[in-house]
Amino acid sequence: MTDTPDSSRGDATRARLLDAAVNAFAEKGFHGTTTRDIAAGAGVSPAALYVHHRSKEEMLYLISRDGHAETLALINQGVAHTDGCTETLRRVVHEFAAQHARGHTIARIINYEVAALTPEHMSEIAALRRDIQSVMRRLISRGVEANEFDVMDVDLTAAAILSMGIDLARWYTEGGRWTPEQIGDHYAEFALRIVGAERTGPARD
Amino acid sequence: MTDTPDSSRGDATRARLLDAAVNAFAEKGFHGTTTRDIAAGAGVSPAALYVHHRSKEEMLYLISRDGHAETLALINQGVAHTDGCTETLRRVVHEFAAQHARGHTIARIINYEVAALTPEHMSEIAALRRDIQSVMRRLISRGVEANEFDVMDVDLTAAAILSMGIDLARWYTEGGRWTPEQIGDHYAEFALRIVGAERTGPARD
Repeated sequence: MTDTPDSSRGDATRARLLDAAVNAFAEKGFHGTTTRDIAAGAGVSPAALYVHHRSKEEMLYLISRDGHAETLALINQGVAHTDGCTETLRRVVHEFAAQHARGHTIARIINYEVAALTPEHMSEIAALRRDIQSVMRRLISRGVEANEFDVMDVDLTAAAILSMGIDLARWYTEGGRWTPEQIGDHYAEFALRIVGAERTGPARD
Repeated sequence: MTDTPDSSRGDATRARLLDAAVNAFAEKGFHGTTTRDIAAGAGVSPAALYVHHRSKEEMLYLISRDGHAETLALINQGVAHTDGCTETLRRVVHEFAAQHARGHTIARIINYEVAALTPEHMSEIAALRRDIQSVMRRLISRGVEANEFDVMDVDLTAAAILSMGIDLARWYTEGGRWTPEQIGDHYAEFALRIVGAERTGPARD
């Protein structure tokens, strides 16, 4: 853990390159982007890029891994409370949807460019996605066992609730009609309705 | 309208090329696919491809236009009945979700490669998407006016219901646990719950 000025400058450049990669992938797609584009976006030479990142694919992988890890941490945090399942689901879906609205550019890249990853990286990302699904499935199962929820198929219910949030990346834009917080409030309500939760939170009107 | 053997053979080749384009785009992505790949997939020479299609982009546009037009026709058909809004929403969401499960490969290409379209083509596709949204919004509004539905925000509710179906293209696979029909049944139920419809259809258990 040597935190010399040199290594922290290296970290800053590495992060700036990832930001530039996000912008370039969002604008031109993964395949339409060159490492030269990314280097230019970060204000470094193409050769300097390779000091920090092995390849364009590795940058996509890092963006995807960090994005998924952040989502997983967020929903794990959401289920760590000791509330009932209804309040927990409300919180988890609120955070999940608000995060996808806020981070729609990264979420879009992560979801749409997954096929560009190497098989090894793809399977690591798939494992993170399965973990996210599992947390949602377990939460819904707990709610069913506690008689708080009434669902026909736990796994499909979890998939549909996650889909509503994931697809925000396709259509959500900043400065539109809804803030990420408002999106979170509405989507939490949609999820509670889907699982047939009794209303326990604030009134809807 | 001369329906000579020649022109119908031309149509067949044109359609075969589009099928080959779907397969190639699904496997390698739009940017990773060459017109040579598509021609080989359809069993014609690269030069013959250009007899039928101007460019790779135009093929993507045709796949996207036809896919969206089919979806729009499907949901327009769904709302053309004179049932109440609850049964209409059940039917429309069932068809929409089942179609996205059945046609998940095409749906995925259409949604994920939209950025590769020319601005003119993109705006034509965007208009079709707005039409699909409008049908869903009007149906939900009618249900609210008829006191069949209870929603806070018509437009966001429509977006969330469509998202559940659209995102099927990301994860649905043939031979998995649910048939497209079963997906349709469940997703219709999710939608009815989201809009707060009174239960009028077959019992859920």
